[in-house]
Amino acid sequence: MPQLSPRITQLNEGGSDGWEVFYRARAMVAAGTDVTELTIGEHDIRTAPAILDAMHEAAHGGHTGYAMVPGIPALRAALAQRLTERTGVPTTAENILVTPGGQAGLFSAHMAVLDPGDAALYVDPYYATYPGTIRAASGRAVPVQTRARDAFLPDPAAVSEAAAESGAKSLLINTPNNPTGTIYPQATLEALAEVCRDRDLWLISDEVYDTQLWEGAHLSPRTLPGMAERTMVIGSMSKSHAMTGSRIGWIVAPAPAIERLIDLATATTYGVPGYIQDAALFALTRGPDLEERIAAPFRRRRALALEVIARQDTVTAIPSQGAMYLMLDIRATGLSGRDFADRLLDAHHIAVMPGESFGRSAAGHVRVALTVDDARLDAALGTLCAFAESLTHE
Amino acid sequence: MPQLSPRITQLNEGGSDGWEVFYRARAMVAAGTDVTELTIGEHDIRTAPAILDAMHEAAHGGHTGYAMVPGIPALRAALAQRLTERTGVPTTAENILVTPGGQAGLFSAHMAVLDPGDAALYVDPYYATYPGTIRAASGRAVPVQTRARDAFLPDPAAVSEAAAESGAKSLLINTPNNPTGTIYPQATLEALAEVCRDRDLWLISDEVYDTQLWEGAHLSPRTLPGMAERTMVIGSMSKSHAMTGSRIGWIVAPAPAIERLIDLATATTYGVPGYIQDAALFALTRGPDLEERIAAPFRRRRALALEVIARQDTVTAIPSQGAMYLMLDIRATGLSGRDFADRLLDAHHIAVMPGESFGRSAAGHVRVALTVDDARLDAALGTLCAFAESLTHE
Repeated sequence: MPQLSPRITQLNEGGSDGWEVFYRARAMVAAGTDVTELTIGEHDIRTAPAILDAMHEAAHGGHTGYAMVPGIPALRAALAQRLTERTGVPTTAENILVTPGGQAGLFSAHMAVLDPGDAALYVDPYYATYPGTIRAASGRAVPVQTRARDAFLPDPAAVSEAAAESGAKSLLINTPNNPTGTIYPQATLEALAEVCRDRDLWLISDEVYDTQLWEGAHLSPRTLPGMAERTMVIGSMSKSHAMTGSRIGWIVAPAPAIERLIDLATATTYGVPGYIQDAALFALTRGPDLEERIAAPFRRRRALALEVIARQDTVTAIPSQGAMYLMLDIRATGLSGRDFADRLLDAHHIAVMPGESFGRSAAGHVRVALTVDDARLDAALGTLCAFAESLTHE
Repeated sequence: MPQLSPRITQLNEGGSDGWEVFYRARAMVAAGTDVTELTIGEHDIRTAPAILDAMHEAAHGGHTGYAMVPGIPALRAALAQRLTERTGVPTTAENILVTPGGQAGLFSAHMAVLDPGDAALYVDPYYATYPGTIRAASGRAVPVQTRARDAFLPDPAAVSEAAAESGAKSLLINTPNNPTGTIYPQATLEALAEVCRDRDLWLISDEVYDTQLWEGAHLSPRTLPGMAERTMVIGSMSKSHAMTGSRIGWIVAPAPAIERLIDLATATTYGVPGYIQDAALFALTRGPDLEERIAAPFRRRRALALEVIARQDTVTAIPSQGAMYLMLDIRATGLSGRDFADRLLDAHHIAVMPGESFGRSAAGHVRVALTVDDARLDAALGTLCAFAESLTHE
């Protein structure tokens, strides 16, 4: 076999640790063990039948040929209108590229702003694919570390320094945040926006959890002064409408950037199935009620989880305001997140993600996805806390 | 707006000419003109209702969450079995990555074998996205010119020379060929395989038309000695099953390459909708009868078209054996393919693609897609020939 490109063979180099726990849990499930999986961000409900019916109707109606690469005009227009209404920033269809999922949006945005070797900043802890996404775009992935005591919010001064040192072209942020559940406060976003303007950075803003808000409000940094022209927002139907498997998302960007991103999409994916776009359009036109129905179980479970955590002192929760996760500090046990997750899985058949899976900053933590029913979550968290407490006596 | 990467802004630089005709035809249709569109490779039928029903059943059955990034095991196994049966090359699920369409397969394959700046060969005339695909992977796109009198088949000696001069890492071929309709003969493929072995090239073999065979047989170069280890085959459900809009395809490659391609897919697309994979699996299990039913209209129309062409001397057809296109030599008119297509559209509301849209080698030609019903195709080709003949008297 001839050599593969170092680009692809080194994609996951220096990458996240601790995904073994996830795969081990899956193998246990496959072998028939009853594991409580609190690992990935997958809803415990399926896509609503009405959305699937809309898809079927579109497909049977003949929408099975090549769809326009930028996205069907009606969906681009609907997304633009939704954004205009929600953010107050005038947005048109020319600002939207429909992508086969949020991940394709993240990749395409980095392809558009990086040339090979260019540095790109991202905040640690991070969604697992971030560094590989930057490396796939032949960029240098430069993490900005954060601290648990700051609720893992990035320090704008540290971002500015990292940008200067690396010559970065872009900053990638995610609010509401996976894995931490935090929502970036306005002051943080304003300071980060200033860094982007000062250092001439593109801001790539991953906002796929923007309908999962438990406290406070979501502010898109694209709305801040001078930012619409240097921000690419990544959106998706996955989390908001329980359509993870349908792989449909979008990029919001200045129109001249979207024009070039369409060239890229032509060469990399050639569009998104028309009937899935029709289904997304149907789902979006149901309005915020449907989104709230999808988010409600996570809101309820977060409250429930915080109550369980409040009953003891060994495990503490990072203060969270959104997204379907809780980040728990288990450093009082003296274990790494990885070891804690490993032992919890073996001892109690409860699977959580080690903080280390999301970067160095989250060492000594575990992430809990709020993706099982309330009673099961209640029991699992009670067990997790008791297990942590027992470890302190070892 | 900060700068976009030169990679993305130069994606279409020095690119194909003549797509204006296509867009002009589309605009005329939108404005209510009755245009005979013989432009793109889109079937005049839709995806079969039984396939769409299978998709709906899978979606309603709950297959709406994240599908495994490499593809669902059953589809990978079915594709491996189909390939083993059709080619005799032992192929397993570990040799298959399911991709969101053939275009994503082409892009991913080039990402896997090229590092930024590496040269990649492709044969001119070519499917329109080829050079942009290589550039999107930060490669140098190096065309190998061919000649109409050789039916646009590549000369292996010229390929070898181009590989040596450019230091190329890969060669991209397409058989049955779009836009020419030729099938590479075994001797050509054996000679190209030898070049790949001698020059240590990856062969990226686009075989998405492998079910549209009018004369002779399709030989996959992966079956040739020593080639399975250095060939990536691109396949797709688009042409074989009229599923263009469903965006589902695959890469066949050595297992270690597929492992790395899965890393890349995780960072670029994160898999393909599970219910679309179920639909593809359903369609594949219908066997070759369904494929033949999809191909039959093009076989019939090609015969019809060759009859019309045979009635006159001004326009000649490049000898073709497969794919849903005919390449016509209109050099006797003294016009470029571009001018001919422009004037034909204006005078007779018939839209064909200028040969120049597919590269320099096809100048003075036009490509006709056999994608309208027989009577309409018959009439349009008669008009085209008469129009060409009239031009020789100007």
